[in-house]
Amino acid sequence: MAKLIKKRSEKTGLPPGALIHIGEKKTEKARITIIDYDEMQLQEKEAASVEACIPFKDKSRNTVTWINVDGLHQVELVENLCKCFEVHHLITEDILNTDQRPKIEEFEGYLYIILKMFCYNGKENVLITEQVSLILGPNFVLSFQENTRDDFRMIRERIGTGKGRIRKMGADHLAYCLIDIIVDNYFLVLEALGEKIELLEEKLVVYPTPEVLHTIYTLKRDMLLLRKSIWPLREMINKLERGECALFKESTTIYLKDVYDHTIHVIDTLETFREVVSGMLEIYLSSMSNRMNAVIKVLTMIATIFMPLTFIAGVYGMNFRFMPELQWRWGYPAVLLVMATVGISMAIYFRRKKWI
Amino acid sequence: MAKLIKKRSEKTGLPPGALIHIGEKKTEKARITIIDYDEMQLQEKEAASVEACIPFKDKSRNTVTWINVDGLHQVELVENLCKCFEVHHLITEDILNTDQRPKIEEFEGYLYIILKMFCYNGKENVLITEQVSLILGPNFVLSFQENTRDDFRMIRERIGTGKGRIRKMGADHLAYCLIDIIVDNYFLVLEALGEKIELLEEKLVVYPTPEVLHTIYTLKRDMLLLRKSIWPLREMINKLERGECALFKESTTIYLKDVYDHTIHVIDTLETFREVVSGMLEIYLSSMSNRMNAVIKVLTMIATIFMPLTFIAGVYGMNFRFMPELQWRWGYPAVLLVMATVGISMAIYFRRKKWI
Amino acid sequence: MAKLIKKRSEKTGLPPGALIHIGEKKTEKARITIIDYDEMQLQEKEAASVEACIPFKDKSRNTVTWINVDGLHQVELVENLCKCFEVHHLITEDILNTDQRPKIEEFEGYLYIILKMFCYNGKENVLITEQVSLILGPNFVLSFQENTRDDFRMIRERIGTGKGRIRKMGADHLAYCLIDIIVDNYFLVLEALGEKIELLEEKLVVYPTPEVLHTIYTLKRDMLLLRKSIWPLREMINKLERGECALFKESTTIYLKDVYDHTIHVIDTLETFREVVSGMLEIYLSSMSNRMNAVIKVLTMIATIFMPLTFIAGVYGMNFRFMPELQWRWGYPAVLLVMATVGISMAIYFRRKKWI
Amino acid sequence: MAKLIKKRSEKTGLPPGALIHIGEKKTEKARITIIDYDEMQLQEKEAASVEACIPFKDKSRNTVTWINVDGLHQVELVENLCKCFEVHHLITEDILNTDQRPKIEEFEGYLYIILKMFCYNGKENVLITEQVSLILGPNFVLSFQENTRDDFRMIRERIGTGKGRIRKMGADHLAYCLIDIIVDNYFLVLEALGEKIELLEEKLVVYPTPEVLHTIYTLKRDMLLLRKSIWPLREMINKLERGECALFKESTTIYLKDVYDHTIHVIDTLETFREVVSGMLEIYLSSMSNRMNAVIKVLTMIATIFMPLTFIAGVYGMNFRFMPELQWRWGYPAVLLVMATVGISMAIYFRRKKWI
Amino acid sequence: MAKLIKKRSEKTGLPPGALIHIGEKKTEKARITIIDYDEMQLQEKEAASVEACIPFKDKSRNTVTWINVDGLHQVELVENLCKCFEVHHLITEDILNTDQRPKIEEFEGYLYIILKMFCYNGKENVLITEQVSLILGPNFVLSFQENTRDDFRMIRERIGTGKGRIRKMGADHLAYCLIDIIVDNYFLVLEALGEKIELLEEKLVVYPTPEVLHTIYTLKRDMLLLRKSIWPLREMINKLERGECALFKESTTIYLKDVYDHTIHVIDTLETFREVVSGMLEIYLSSMSNRMNAVIKVLTMIATIFMPLTFIAGVYGMNFRFMPELQWRWGYPAVLLVMATVGISMAIYFRRKKWI
Repeated sequence: MAKLIKKRSEKTGLPPGALIHIGEKKTEKARITIIDYDEMQLQEKEAASVEACIPFKDKSRNTVTWINVDGLHQVELVENLCKCFEVHHLITEDILNTDQRPKIEEFEGYLYIILKMFCYNGKENVLITEQVSLILGPNFVLSFQENTRDDFRMIRERIGTGKGRIRKMGADHLAYCLIDIIVDNYFLVLEALGEKIELLEEKLVVYPTPEVLHTIYTLKRDMLLLRKSIWPLREMINKLERGECALFKESTTIYLKDVYDHTIHVIDTLETFREVVSGMLEIYLSSMSNRMNAVIKVLTMIATIFMPLTFIAGVYGMNFRFMPELQWRWGYPAVLLVMATVGISMAIYFRRKKWI
Repeated sequence: MAKLIKKRSEKTGLPPGALIHIGEKKTEKARITIIDYDEMQLQEKEAASVEACIPFKDKSRNTVTWINVDGLHQVELVENLCKCFEVHHLITEDILNTDQRPKIEEFEGYLYIILKMFCYNGKENVLITEQVSLILGPNFVLSFQENTRDDFRMIRERIGTGKGRIRKMGADHLAYCLIDIIVDNYFLVLEALGEKIELLEEKLVVYPTPEVLHTIYTLKRDMLLLRKSIWPLREMINKLERGECALFKESTTIYLKDVYDHTIHVIDTLETFREVVSGMLEIYLSSMSNRMNAVIKVLTMIATIFMPLTFIAGVYGMNFRFMPELQWRWGYPAVLLVMATVGISMAIYFRRKKWI
Repeated sequence: MAKLIKKRSEKTGLPPGALIHIGEKKTEKARITIIDYDEMQLQEKEAASVEACIPFKDKSRNTVTWINVDGLHQVELVENLCKCFEVHHLITEDILNTDQRPKIEEFEGYLYIILKMFCYNGKENVLITEQVSLILGPNFVLSFQENTRDDFRMIRERIGTGKGRIRKMGADHLAYCLIDIIVDNYFLVLEALGEKIELLEEKLVVYPTPEVLHTIYTLKRDMLLLRKSIWPLREMINKLERGECALFKESTTIYLKDVYDHTIHVIDTLETFREVVSGMLEIYLSSMSNRMNAVIKVLTMIATIFMPLTFIAGVYGMNFRFMPELQWRWGYPAVLLVMATVGISMAIYFRRKKWI
Repeated sequence: MAKLIKKRSEKTGLPPGALIHIGEKKTEKARITIIDYDEMQLQEKEAASVEACIPFKDKSRNTVTWINVDGLHQVELVENLCKCFEVHHLITEDILNTDQRPKIEEFEGYLYIILKMFCYNGKENVLITEQVSLILGPNFVLSFQENTRDDFRMIRERIGTGKGRIRKMGADHLAYCLIDIIVDNYFLVLEALGEKIELLEEKLVVYPTPEVLHTIYTLKRDMLLLRKSIWPLREMINKLERGECALFKESTTIYLKDVYDHTIHVIDTLETFREVVSGMLEIYLSSMSNRMNAVIKVLTMIATIFMPLTFIAGVYGMNFRFMPELQWRWGYPAVLLVMATVGISMAIYFRRKKWI
Repeated sequence: MAKLIKKRSEKTGLPPGALIHIGEKKTEKARITIIDYDEMQLQEKEAASVEACIPFKDKSRNTVTWINVDGLHQVELVENLCKCFEVHHLITEDILNTDQRPKIEEFEGYLYIILKMFCYNGKENVLITEQVSLILGPNFVLSFQENTRDDFRMIRERIGTGKGRIRKMGADHLAYCLIDIIVDNYFLVLEALGEKIELLEEKLVVYPTPEVLHTIYTLKRDMLLLRKSIWPLREMINKLERGECALFKESTTIYLKDVYDHTIHVIDTLETFREVVSGMLEIYLSSMSNRMNAVIKVLTMIATIFMPLTFIAGVYGMNFRFMPELQWRWGYPAVLLVMATVGISMAIYFRRKKWI
């Protein structure tokens, strides 16, 4: 199961702006990819160090520069890149502290966006979270990812092939595309959850087992974590879409509106899922108690039929000297008949009570 | 049961505006119907292709043109029609992506409305959803339906016979009529649900079976899906009714207010239904546990009466050599008497405890 | 139980303004009562037809005219009266369609108010709803009731005897009085519900039966229906009280404020009742499970005491040839002693465990 | 238990302003106390009749007059006092109708405040409510209490001894003091409830009995009634504190802010209590079902051990002529050994399953 | 467990501003620490009495003075310090009354802030609360703590070593640092709770015991208390961050925004925890009932198999004179065979029903 909370205790008491990476400590080297493009030309390279990024800092250039960093564990790399682009030290702190709430912050000359990327690992049934930070300047976008899973590959390909409007438009459109692909990923997660829920529903109808219970619990938990990230996302994109941030041009607003609709749709679907799963738990519990009911009925029937019979047999097993019935010629068959009568009338009684 | 979520995974990562139809892939041909009317004249025909629609595009005409498309699986047909009426490519995408939230969007020269049409298939107990898109221009309405069930037949007839105000008024009144018939359909669905609920209530009183449980679950699920579509509908019609969209004239506002009242009424009724069904679940569970209680009481009574009796019989079935009672003349009747006393006093005890 | 939803399916697809009466079809004739008064004079009569109302339409008259219609099944009567007073056709439709939400609508020259009247039939334990429509003009009030139960009798008497301020004030005060009596009726319904709840509470303490469950369910259901009508009533009266409707004069505002306070009070009380009833259900369920607990304890005690005893008896009932104990002189009393010891020590054990 | 609703049915249909006292009808005489003070002088007396109050009505006086009425059952006394101070007849009605919601109403020249006073009778475990009405004029305060419990004694003493700021300030400060003491009383009630809850918590841990259930229910019910009065109190004091009422001077605002903070604190604590009590119910139910579980385990163990043993004994109690085992020399001890083996292995099995 | 409510009954009825310390009465002496600094110089000393603080009161000084009081039980010490800095007497009351809601209040010349400090004592599993009051003036900060646990040590060290921005900035930055460290402490508490929850989750999967129940209850209770303090904290910091308090300079706003984000994050996490714990309770209850189910199945199986067998044995234990089977040569083995058949077929039946 995904962690409920990330350890940030080592940060307590440190002055604001202290740069400490919260999250998995990896050993692989972080990767910096630089893509510089306009409608006509395209330059794509991997940077060995931060120095390679300096030439792209020039604000008078007409091309759009996208610098993507995969891996945050190399703290000074992130720090240097941020310093190079004159990013506020509190932001550098937030980029490294990956236990942040999605938010948007406007600074002079750039916009800082934190997002949560989700992906559902179907094999291990685990929901994986990753924090993505974007810094949008007038003609550049810096993106920071925790993993090296390369979720932005599709955007890179789209830029590469020049498909769609992306090459004709500015850095704000690139930022929109990155946000859009993250929100699209939520739909993938929802699809995975939806399939899991429908599978569970079938199991519930056919034969509910105690595992159902555990699956319901993990589903609920995953949905809680998703929800925690999506609600602030909504506010955030709403702010963008209302045109409150000058760096997003008018022409991008209609696209942001589209992303906003998607976010609302994700929220609606998630809330519906949550209620469906709650309903499933109720149904599971009641079908369990129905089954217990059935078991207890069987027990009661057996006991109610055989206890009186055993008692009768016990009576005629007593060793009293003077028990006239024992001497009768037809005593034994008579008793057998009585027993059969008692047993059958009990069965009829249960039939009437609809127990059988 | 209705699907919880539609597959849209194939769309992930595609550039915005990519035209992909989400939903059932059918093989029948989509049908285009054109109706052109004013107070005096009426022209109704089925169009073989998009070309037949071009003459009706002329904005200086005084008649109202309604072009209805049944079936969205022929992507290029929808695309061409939209291009012909100069509809934004993001809208064309939304028309085809039938997993949308009801919404309204204003563009220069036209208004885009997404609605969800529901219908309840009583035989199979299935709630069927369909996405309806409307594009309202100054003198035309384009409507896109997924199915070919022809839910707008009544409007067509009303135009044909010239009944009501419809022929005297503009395209906005036609759009209102289409919205109105969709909202009216919600009442039909609610009626079907209401009847199902009242039937369930009777069953609950007479003899609750485990099927009740399953029906409650599907009812809840259907209501969740309905609700997901009706809440945004409400906001949407509220926006129209407040007169925020210039394409709806003053004279239509009072009718929109009426539709708005209906929507609120639908929501209120749905919420009441939801709470009634929740209450039914509680009652079902408690009556189940009441019945279990009764069963366990029977078991306990039988055991409590027969166990001591069987024990007494067992005692006198022992083979000790020196058991004086066995030799007594009246030993057997005495023991029978003791047994009867024990049994009857137990029964009286249970009577007093109100178990019988 | 009250119906959850009224059939309005016959209305689907009809043009707006179609006049169809929804509700019970009665055969008695509808009754029209006309009361015309000012401080000095009073005229009261029953009208045979709508024509008798025409003279009271004159807007220059200084008297207040109140025309009350009991029974809506005579559609054309209502239609004619509405036409006579120049009421919009959508309103006539709403008057007849008795499945409306309480609302207020302002038109030029008059105000349209829909209210729900409730009354609790104690004998049959049924909550009866009735839709009351009011049309308030500058010097007239039209009121439409479904039933002929004559709930406005008290107002008529007050006008007749000239008690209170009613004769000195205008049509708006009359409308206020009608609204006030409807809200006062809610308190009667709440009182009936409150008494039923307190009765249930006593039953819960003394001896809860499964009927309690059913009563709780019907209580909840009735409260849901009440609530559905009272919440919109609140908004409605709030609108009036804020002085948004010009037809209500300043002098009536303080009285409307009083009605508003009553409405809030009704809502508060209803919500409190709902929570009390929810609490009662929980208590009922737990006391049921407590009782089951007690039953199972008895079963366990009996079984735990007699099973070992019966086993011992069974052992000495075996027919082995070589069982030395059987030959002992004091074998039988010894075994009886052992049995008694086992039984009593079990009882002591249960006592300690606080089962007895 | 406190009543859920007060009978007001006798008021239904009466004209607004009808003076009817709702509540307990007492026979003792109502008491009028007059206190007149400024910084220098103090006059305190009990008035025999309303006439004694007339001299204090003079608006040009510089002293503050506080007239307190204990007991509302003498309707004409209240009526006369209200007439004497020119109070609107709707207010007089509200003072007498003690089933009111806390509210504040501003009139020309005075302010009308309704509050609910609570006190917890620890001995009988009953929550007692009382309605207190205040009328604040420029230099007088009228206060009406239902009971004669004298909750305002402390204020009277503070005025008497001249402690605190009260003698130096105006009538608005006196009104604040009265409100403050009522809100302080809520803390006392909360303390009593809090102690009861903590006592229950201990019982839950040590030995939960069915009485716990009943106590939880009454706690919930009391808290519902408290809440019904405190939420409107909050709005009310907020209105005062925002300085919307001219009769409260600037200098008193900071004190009102303090009362407002207290009210919020009361609400927060109450909501916390409600959730704690809900949690306790859950725990009670689960510990009950845990105990049932334990009982059923005992039953199952006993049955599972002794049923097979009794069966074996039964087999060798059969009277077949040819049963070779019966003749064996060591048959009896062998069977006893078999029985012991079965019994002990069962016990080991249960141990492993952690039942014992 | 932490107390639900602090005793404040002794305060009821006292005039506003009465100075009474609510909380633990300690005997140790309260400690006053004075730190006076600017970028260049630093002075730190422990004050023996309030007099030592007087020189730092001078408003024309350019240094920042921080006076910290540990321990509120010495009422007159607090009172004198407050008088010395001209703090309003209602505030002095609030500082001493440690049962306050977090709030912020602006006065002329200073700002009064109440906060709740939490810390989780892992060993005793107790949540410890402490009220911290801050008074922020133009160039001084007074802080009042209940305990002597010295939570502000880190700030003092940071000032001492001159690390971070703290020495270069004003009193408002110091106040921010104190608030920040308190909010950071919430993360520590959340971490402790999160670990406890994840530990519980593991236990739930492996082997749920009744202790789980008790832990869930205390967790819920602690989270309720936390929540009661954090929600008002949020409003409070939001007010600061929006720049409504002039004493916080523009340059500090970005830091306050950071604290605000942390507060929101704490709330989100807490709400997620609450829902996770609710889900755990449901799972616990259902796994308990699953286990009961299993136990009852065992009971039913044993009874269903052995009751018929014992009955058969009982029949052939009867002492009738004429029972032909008893005389048969193969009677005994035949009966054993019948018994085996019955037993095995029962077992097969249970296998099919998936009970084994």
